[in-house]
Amino acid sequence: MNMTASGQLTLSKDSTLSMNSLPLIPQKLLTPGPLTTSKRVRQAAGVDWGSWDSDFRQLTKRVLNGLLTIAAATGVACVPMQGSGTFAVEAAVRTFVPRSGGLVVGVNGAYGERMAKLAKLSGFRVKVVESAWNEPIDPNRLAALLGVEYTHVGIIHCETSTGLLNPLPELAETIHAAGGRLIVDAMSTFGALDVLADHPGVEAVIAASGKCLEGLPGMGFVLARTQSLEAAIGRCDSLSLDLADQHAYLERTGQWRFTPPTHVVAALAQALADYHAEGGRTARLTKYQENSKALALAAAELGLASYLPAELQAPIIHTFYAPGSERWDFSRFYNLVKAQGFILYPGKLTKEETFRVGCIGQVTPETMRAAIAAIGQAFTELGIDPKLRM
Amino acid sequence: MNMTASGQLTLSKDSTLSMNSLPLIPQKLLTPGPLTTSKRVRQAAGVDWGSWDSDFRQLTKRVLNGLLTIAAATGVACVPMQGSGTFAVEAAVRTFVPRSGGLVVGVNGAYGERMAKLAKLSGFRVKVVESAWNEPIDPNRLAALLGVEYTHVGIIHCETSTGLLNPLPELAETIHAAGGRLIVDAMSTFGALDVLADHPGVEAVIAASGKCLEGLPGMGFVLARTQSLEAAIGRCDSLSLDLADQHAYLERTGQWRFTPPTHVVAALAQALADYHAEGGRTARLTKYQENSKALALAAAELGLASYLPAELQAPIIHTFYAPGSERWDFSRFYNLVKAQGFILYPGKLTKEETFRVGCIGQVTPETMRAAIAAIGQAFTELGIDPKLRM
Repeated sequence: MNMTASGQLTLSKDSTLSMNSLPLIPQKLLTPGPLTTSKRVRQAAGVDWGSWDSDFRQLTKRVLNGLLTIAAATGVACVPMQGSGTFAVEAAVRTFVPRSGGLVVGVNGAYGERMAKLAKLSGFRVKVVESAWNEPIDPNRLAALLGVEYTHVGIIHCETSTGLLNPLPELAETIHAAGGRLIVDAMSTFGALDVLADHPGVEAVIAASGKCLEGLPGMGFVLARTQSLEAAIGRCDSLSLDLADQHAYLERTGQWRFTPPTHVVAALAQALADYHAEGGRTARLTKYQENSKALALAAAELGLASYLPAELQAPIIHTFYAPGSERWDFSRFYNLVKAQGFILYPGKLTKEETFRVGCIGQVTPETMRAAIAAIGQAFTELGIDPKLRM
Repeated sequence: MNMTASGQLTLSKDSTLSMNSLPLIPQKLLTPGPLTTSKRVRQAAGVDWGSWDSDFRQLTKRVLNGLLTIAAATGVACVPMQGSGTFAVEAAVRTFVPRSGGLVVGVNGAYGERMAKLAKLSGFRVKVVESAWNEPIDPNRLAALLGVEYTHVGIIHCETSTGLLNPLPELAETIHAAGGRLIVDAMSTFGALDVLADHPGVEAVIAASGKCLEGLPGMGFVLARTQSLEAAIGRCDSLSLDLADQHAYLERTGQWRFTPPTHVVAALAQALADYHAEGGRTARLTKYQENSKALALAAAELGLASYLPAELQAPIIHTFYAPGSERWDFSRFYNLVKAQGFILYPGKLTKEETFRVGCIGQVTPETMRAAIAAIGQAFTELGIDPKLRM
């Protein structure tokens, strides 16, 4: 980061924050959102919109319709929510779980832990069912706890903390059969994988602007049945996070209740237009699967060990073990890779040294191979054999 | 709004959403945020940042320091909050008002009503003290209610619903003397007027990125004593809206707890660099005062009647009575003014027909005079004499 003589802030090209010059290599974010967006999407954020104006109301409508088209769900509405994805998750819990009921959370990663934490803090009856972080959630263990006291089940579709894909179809079937309703954090899958928004076992699906839709971060959204939204009027004990109120107001006026992130909304409209023009969800999934395969192959060739078995791996983000060397230093490694133009993501496991490489956003199999080459180069500079095991 | 052959979204030039062509006249937003920003600020949003990366942590630090420099307050920290300003107001109430205490809200406009509503919904003990919308809040009426049950007072510095400036110095003094603490919604004044962030009677001051700082909308922030933030750990019953937790995490890691609106943060960094380079708060206030004077003068010359007496008018947004004519139609009027390049704001009074013209953002006295000329032209087209009174 730097300022030029004219006072314009610029990115530094290097990894040490010496703030000297313009970037020579545009950095690719291999992170699960914020991620690398297209210039066209960022340019769409370059216009000031009046939030009350009919053009902006039309823009909002276009965004919500674009999101609903992806979900391809019947009887379902899309409600935007300012803030990050977590705000939308808390909004969904507070709007849909009745105080007489409660939430069972299937936890096999940091985002499951977060959902349980926010539900507890919000004063709900919460029961946590833990699995190992490299094992999928077991639908039957969750279903067994359902009843009058526990009406809802919260799960994370793809646990971004590892890259693990939880079995949403089986979860929806089993929870539905047991009389419960699923709240699905689909933050890093919506737009690429099917999120079953109108499955009878699904109460709400939550995602955000800056993940697989390749928009800018700054807003979340929730897909839920129009009927459920109408039934939830007056239930939420937070004005900001009330999805039912936001939905009703949007229906009545075409406007957001409180100042929307207008530039982020405009960028998302562009991202959605491009998404649909490029072939929609099938095309997006294929692109990410190709990135994921190229990444896995190049990493295996370099000798890196994957944290997850291939059958549990979502085509979103991969976790790799750090090599078993005393020379390992994540911070130095990160900066060496960054100097070559790639932003990695730290691992989230508490006991094992790992790092993560995302494969979503404006990146290609070529980017993945180049990133692994940069990672190999960093290991060489650190004097570490990537094949070394802990 | 339109799409070109290449699929790029564009703004339509006209007011009827016929979506035909590029804007011929760039529209000036005469709204109290989102407002008209500089091209340089919008361009600063054109870069993707990794939210975990040290460059972005440095950017966040630069933004928070820039905000604290404006406040010129001792012992005070600045805590960012994703979402709109209302999210930050709810966060401040939930973080600082103890459940054993309660909130007296001084209401003389829609934003005061909103603060009372969100505090009630959040389950707090709330007492509302109403004044007429064209009268300032009376500090003594609020102070009289303070005690063990009512520990805090919520007020709106400039009521954007009318443009009225409430007497913050007197409020701070009186509430402090009565043993209470003020929660100040300074959304549309921070950056232009003194918000007294370290006055002993002030608990928290709340503002947002897209108002007098002339950044993009998408984040709020709260100024509060470091000591109070530390004492509030564990008090907030919302994970998303917990300012104490956000502050502690930022202090420990340099990072936001949940995905930050990276592009909005980058734009705010640029807006703050420009703000300080242009002469800081004094220069910003002078600019807005000049806009405000030019607006008031031109409006008076046209024959418009101001809702507020001059001594209660903040240099932020003006409310004018609609002329007393059966031909008055806000929607037509708005579109006629918009076609000339100016986006106005509807009135918020329930009983009287009004409209609002903001004077903050990248606008000048020349813009104000041109806007009033456009308003005059619209009245001519509607066949209304602007001097007609209701």
